[in-house]
Amino acid sequence: MSLLDSFRKGDSRALSKIVSYVENREDNYRKVLSTLFKDTGKAYKLGLTGPPGAGKSTLMDAITEILVNEGNRVGIIAVDPSSPFTGGAFLGDRIRMQDLSSNENVFIRSMATRGSMGGLARATKDVSMVYDAYGFDYILIETVGVGQVELDIIDAADTVVVAIVPESGDVIQAMKAGLMEIANVFCVNKADREGSDRIIMELNHLLQIKRDKADWSFPVIPTSAVKKEGVDQLVKAVMQHKDYLMESGLFRANRKEQIRKDIIEHIRVMLSANIEDKLHSGEAFENLLEDIYERKNDPVKTAVELYEKHYSN
Amino acid sequence: MSLLDSFRKGDSRALSKIVSYVENREDNYRKVLSTLFKDTGKAYKLGLTGPPGAGKSTLMDAITEILVNEGNRVGIIAVDPSSPFTGGAFLGDRIRMQDLSSNENVFIRSMATRGSMGGLARATKDVSMVYDAYGFDYILIETVGVGQVELDIIDAADTVVVAIVPESGDVIQAMKAGLMEIANVFCVNKADREGSDRIIMELNHLLQIKRDKADWSFPVIPTSAVKKEGVDQLVKAVMQHKDYLMESGLFRANRKEQIRKDIIEHIRVMLSANIEDKLHSGEAFENLLEDIYERKNDPVKTAVELYEKHYSN
Repeated sequence: MSLLDSFRKGDSRALSKIVSYVENREDNYRKVLSTLFKDTGKAYKLGLTGPPGAGKSTLMDAITEILVNEGNRVGIIAVDPSSPFTGGAFLGDRIRMQDLSSNENVFIRSMATRGSMGGLARATKDVSMVYDAYGFDYILIETVGVGQVELDIIDAADTVVVAIVPESGDVIQAMKAGLMEIANVFCVNKADREGSDRIIMELNHLLQIKRDKADWSFPVIPTSAVKKEGVDQLVKAVMQHKDYLMESGLFRANRKEQIRKDIIEHIRVMLSANIEDKLHSGEAFENLLEDIYERKNDPVKTAVELYEKHYSN
Repeated sequence: MSLLDSFRKGDSRALSKIVSYVENREDNYRKVLSTLFKDTGKAYKLGLTGPPGAGKSTLMDAITEILVNEGNRVGIIAVDPSSPFTGGAFLGDRIRMQDLSSNENVFIRSMATRGSMGGLARATKDVSMVYDAYGFDYILIETVGVGQVELDIIDAADTVVVAIVPESGDVIQAMKAGLMEIANVFCVNKADREGSDRIIMELNHLLQIKRDKADWSFPVIPTSAVKKEGVDQLVKAVMQHKDYLMESGLFRANRKEQIRKDIIEHIRVMLSANIEDKLHSGEAFENLLEDIYERKNDPVKTAVELYEKHYSN
């Protein structure tokens, strides 16, 4: 039986192999993605992000448990694009999660690579597509930190939950990080801590303008993931957002926008590979470099000329 | 008098304006870079990186002070590509540095943008080129953290100093982060702390293989930047590395490799902009997206077809 047949029959080892194949950009991985695409479109994608220390992994565990208990199959992608110096706790968290990963309806893949920029977001989207084709009902994408890479990753989700904790300045930092713009549901985790009422009030205040302009309520849900408190309300809010997207037609519009970005990204990756091929052309290019080093020519003008020569038509 | 004339006369406000112009990718910024290029090639570029908390800003201050006292003009680019949630301390550090920035031979620009991916490394290189054309003797590039973005940024430096502190596991983490490969000089800062002898020994042990294979000694310098101890030895090690690069011909080879990467990156940026232009072509593309959403077509195949149509010749 071929790998794809096993995959389609629900063999999790085949899933694991195809995920690695796609993640590592093996030869013909585009063909695999292309083949699998027609089986996609059924999974709902939930993104979870927020600052380090917000308890995202514990939240993810608790959300997964609820979804699985409702009869769903859940695929998790845990992404850590940050430096290895902050990665320790993350890997520790993942080990804690093995409880869940022994459940046959849950599959977890951690992606913590320092591969090329843009590559991590692209690979996350591709793996998410493989998950979708495999037949997961929900795909949970968790990212550590809130930089640009994380924003690009979370871009693939249908509903984005931003988790913060009652700590001074976090709301303002979340705003600066662009999280207010991407969040559909807010979660104030560790809500039993001091200051949580104040942070909920602050968030509600800031969200007023957004709420006035939209048909969506941007709920703020207090949780204590460790005590499993409030997580059912959080899941309910996500489901309400899902219904809202479906009924308003936004689901379709957003997914089409994701497809547009996907196409552009794939072309970008192909073009990037292609530049190196076109320019690695021996002596002539070496002489160009020598001239530029000697300031007889300049790199920007050279780039424009090469671009026009090779790509404009 | 035109802005470029003021710039060439050494007006720091003109420098500041041109840096912003280039950083913000204003219209024709490529033309500005192209014009300035012939005045470049005189500055020496020193990169400083390492994990958060290694005292990089204090080190940078101390190095700058020594270079300025020796009669040099120093341009600093302080880059923080990490999330705004970890950026607080960084901005605090920069305020502390105003001492130095009031010196007319020192110019500091902080870059802490969450702009598009790849953009930060590209912008840092372009600003560094503007600094070079302005006439700085040394350009110091400091990056916070040690992720992929930082590695791409530090790639523009001639000599790379990696700073770590005596903390358990830091050496192993530095290895994982790829710092052993890019460092030319190591600095064990806060060397008055416990464990510093052990970490220096560990580093020396790890470096033995590299030293055996190269003509360079990869020195490990203990410093206490706060007490200004050891920084003169660190600067001396950097100068020795500079001499080594010059005498071995590696300086020329490295700079030519940087030029090669520069050209490729410039073309990549132009191509990226171009994809959007080519595809934003109204109804036909909208219909394509609709077909893909309905799973009558797939995004990867579509991307390959569009790529072949527009870019292969």
